[in-house]
Amino acid sequence: MLGAESLLRTLVANGVDICFMNPGTSEMQFVAALDRVPGMRGVLCLFEGVCSGAADGYARMAGRPAATLLHLGPGLANGLSNFHNARKARSPIVSIVGEHSTQHLEHDAPLSADVEAFARPVSDDIIYLRRAADMGIAAAKTIEAARRPPGQVSMLIVPADYSWSEAGEPGPVIPGPCRATPPAAGIEEAARLIRSRKNVGIILSGTALHGRGLQAAGRLAAATGVRVFANRNAGRMESGRGRFQPERVPYFPEAALATLAGLQHLLLVESKAPVSFFGYPEQPSLMAPADCKLHVVAGLEEDGTAVLETLVEMCGAQGSTAAARSAPAATLPGPGPLTLPALAQAVGALLPEHAIVSDEMVSSGEPVWNRLLCAAPHDHLPVAGGSIGQGLPVAVGAAIACPDRKVVALEADGSGMYTLQSLWTMARESLDVTTVIFANHRYRILDVEMRRTGANGFGPLADAMIGIGRPDIDWVKLSEGLGVPAVRATTTEAFATEFGRAVRERGPRLIEAALPA
Amino acid sequence: MLGAESLLRTLVANGVDICFMNPGTSEMQFVAALDRVPGMRGVLCLFEGVCSGAADGYARMAGRPAATLLHLGPGLANGLSNFHNARKARSPIVSIVGEHSTQHLEHDAPLSADVEAFARPVSDDIIYLRRAADMGIAAAKTIEAARRPPGQVSMLIVPADYSWSEAGEPGPVIPGPCRATPPAAGIEEAARLIRSRKNVGIILSGTALHGRGLQAAGRLAAATGVRVFANRNAGRMESGRGRFQPERVPYFPEAALATLAGLQHLLLVESKAPVSFFGYPEQPSLMAPADCKLHVVAGLEEDGTAVLETLVEMCGAQGSTAAARSAPAATLPGPGPLTLPALAQAVGALLPEHAIVSDEMVSSGEPVWNRLLCAAPHDHLPVAGGSIGQGLPVAVGAAIACPDRKVVALEADGSGMYTLQSLWTMARESLDVTTVIFANHRYRILDVEMRRTGANGFGPLADAMIGIGRPDIDWVKLSEGLGVPAVRATTTEAFATEFGRAVRERGPRLIEAALPA
Repeated sequence: MLGAESLLRTLVANGVDICFMNPGTSEMQFVAALDRVPGMRGVLCLFEGVCSGAADGYARMAGRPAATLLHLGPGLANGLSNFHNARKARSPIVSIVGEHSTQHLEHDAPLSADVEAFARPVSDDIIYLRRAADMGIAAAKTIEAARRPPGQVSMLIVPADYSWSEAGEPGPVIPGPCRATPPAAGIEEAARLIRSRKNVGIILSGTALHGRGLQAAGRLAAATGVRVFANRNAGRMESGRGRFQPERVPYFPEAALATLAGLQHLLLVESKAPVSFFGYPEQPSLMAPADCKLHVVAGLEEDGTAVLETLVEMCGAQGSTAAARSAPAATLPGPGPLTLPALAQAVGALLPEHAIVSDEMVSSGEPVWNRLLCAAPHDHLPVAGGSIGQGLPVAVGAAIACPDRKVVALEADGSGMYTLQSLWTMARESLDVTTVIFANHRYRILDVEMRRTGANGFGPLADAMIGIGRPDIDWVKLSEGLGVPAVRATTTEAFATEFGRAVRERGPRLIEAALPA
Repeated sequence: MLGAESLLRTLVANGVDICFMNPGTSEMQFVAALDRVPGMRGVLCLFEGVCSGAADGYARMAGRPAATLLHLGPGLANGLSNFHNARKARSPIVSIVGEHSTQHLEHDAPLSADVEAFARPVSDDIIYLRRAADMGIAAAKTIEAARRPPGQVSMLIVPADYSWSEAGEPGPVIPGPCRATPPAAGIEEAARLIRSRKNVGIILSGTALHGRGLQAAGRLAAATGVRVFANRNAGRMESGRGRFQPERVPYFPEAALATLAGLQHLLLVESKAPVSFFGYPEQPSLMAPADCKLHVVAGLEEDGTAVLETLVEMCGAQGSTAAARSAPAATLPGPGPLTLPALAQAVGALLPEHAIVSDEMVSSGEPVWNRLLCAAPHDHLPVAGGSIGQGLPVAVGAAIACPDRKVVALEADGSGMYTLQSLWTMARESLDVTTVIFANHRYRILDVEMRRTGANGFGPLADAMIGIGRPDIDWVKLSEGLGVPAVRATTTEAFATEFGRAVRERGPRLIEAALPA
């Protein structure tokens, strides 16, 4: 069996059956094998950052890895920033990167580059294939490494000639990943602290922010009064009516410090210690009070859900009911020019049940989140690694992972421009994604950040580097140019009408929400 | 003086007065300083790959570095593939990358990443600033490293707090770069070989492909019959009527091997040995005959122009006149549906004098190049590193380097999608760029590459990963959406009319050339 086929069969046998790709010459054998090996769905993306971001979104929702197939070092380079985001979201991804054929490596061809060096900053496990016969086992090891809790971007670098050479049988089917339970002593100590009803908090991330873990945290809070926080940069969290809502640690340090003020103990469940997004003059980076003791109750790679359920038992909270956010009636905003609060209200009112929200609203986020807390139950996929250009690709991947659910991409205009090629894949694959572009024609977050770094206001030259108007980007044309029907909404009513229609109908659609500049 | 200002003043004092940027929080002080330090032109790009590619194009035409300003590791990551191309083009670039403030580095914030590791694959010189007081000298060293022949991407990584801290005076003005003259013995040996009139060839790259170097090579060829070749992946080469035209080494190995067959000696002038773009089954990677002796007459970093002029004297070729390509009359193609040969003929006939051609036509290139040989004299900026997404950003940079010359970007549709954000910068800066999109709705080069790698044709699944139709990309809408007026040409007459108008008028314009699928 040729190497490419052995690779493909190993992936499919291990349940890795989606491949987001932008292949080149070195990957042609893999592409050709798609027609010989049943079970793999290739999804073409017109830029590698879409591939890596889509694999991130897929993993966040499917809980298992997709593959990516990229072309040589520079093709990998284009995918790195969304691999960075995936890494921070702890998304398992099987990243296959083609390399020049081995006889070509010693020469300085145009595309020659150190592929491994490109891979290193975003992946702990890198296998550089050294002979064709190792293809199957190397592919299996790459999958195993990707799945290893908490999940990671795992790289397999494949010289082209090993794809077109005889490589023997596919690799083995490897057992699924299993999260370890942390030592009992730490859990008992945590239970003791919670029962003490001192100033104790729990901060959740990873798998603890959805499903049983979140329910258990809600019971604990109801029974013991312990405060429960959400790491704002987790890969996935449940939100909406009827669900327990942890307190989200705010973005800016003053607010985050105020939120966590007074805590004497903070229990970390699949979360690192809360840290501000950026460091600023005269501000600490750690957001917990200086005298607050941090306790790792479940490490990133451990089973936080099981820990929370054990804590429920230890604290006698089995019979408690998590307090769900009281849900005001979902009312539409009144008529008028579109504003951010009105847009937020409309999204909150019209979001369909079990939607998946891919969120890269940046400066527009806060009012929308507040409305989403009372919206229909949904999954929320936040910014994880902070490299902009995540939102649209993650929506692509989530839509492929969950074809029966509506995906709503809430996207800032500056960030959306990074990976707008995603729209084409939405069109080609008829993905059920409603994209809302928050068009304020500015890297608006930087208005705030500029002040915070101590810079004294904007002169006209600085201002021009923050504004992305002049010319204004026409998102309706961009979207239509990539095959996704689009409209611009300038009033509250128009937005509500268009958003309501988009989430009712199936298929990709984009709404440019024209916000005040 | 604050660090950001010291940095900016050092750049401007050293003639680095253009900065292609996409800044974030860590770079705000640099942005704010634009209004305090006269002489720096900031050019905002909506994606970092546009910044790095534009700096490449600027360097190719200006012969000196521009700066780029990128945000943290992931922002740098987005620029890497065009830095790779710049590196292969030997373009000097001063790349400034912001880093988290030092107190923030120990924490795992969302954007925390190993910036230096991201920088390494594309740059030999990396300075990670260790204290604010070193800002000026570090900036000067970075500029010096960028300019060091043959030119490189030189990185300066600046923690945010060193930008907002007192940093003392700017760094020194450093002397311009100077290429060394290679040892006389090698030149004398080369002259002896050329005069022997055996099967001797010279292959040129770097600075030897334009200006005095190319003229000298033409005289040598005329006087001695020595064959002169051009490395097809040089950063810049002169072309067109009245100019000496070296033989361009073909892309595919069979043709390249045939072109170089019979050579006994190949003299390398600022060029590496010719190597095929990719390695293929049963094909060598080196394109010179196995028994051909390679002689480095001028290394990549040496003065190939001076070497060629010395060779002219040694071979008594001072009085010779280089044979210029005989130029047939520039006739427009006849009427009919647009085809690639007709498009090529129209571009050749209508290209204005002293245009700069940014070329990323990929599979459409060959017929156009043949027409460009007989077109008005122009500079040709070829694919250097082979990572697609180079063409439009390079056009941006060339247009800023040479505001009085028309830039013509000849761009494949697949490649163009990688960095289409370039169009917005063309619109914002009113750059005089005519972009032609060769819209064949396919990664057509892969049709050939698929066969060459031994894969047996396409099944429908493989075919879908090569075709980029379904949906067809509407480049007119994309271009208009980004502020650049655009038209689609489906006939020969329409293309000639639109291209003729675009190159006569000033400002950015795009033509989607609808080619047969």
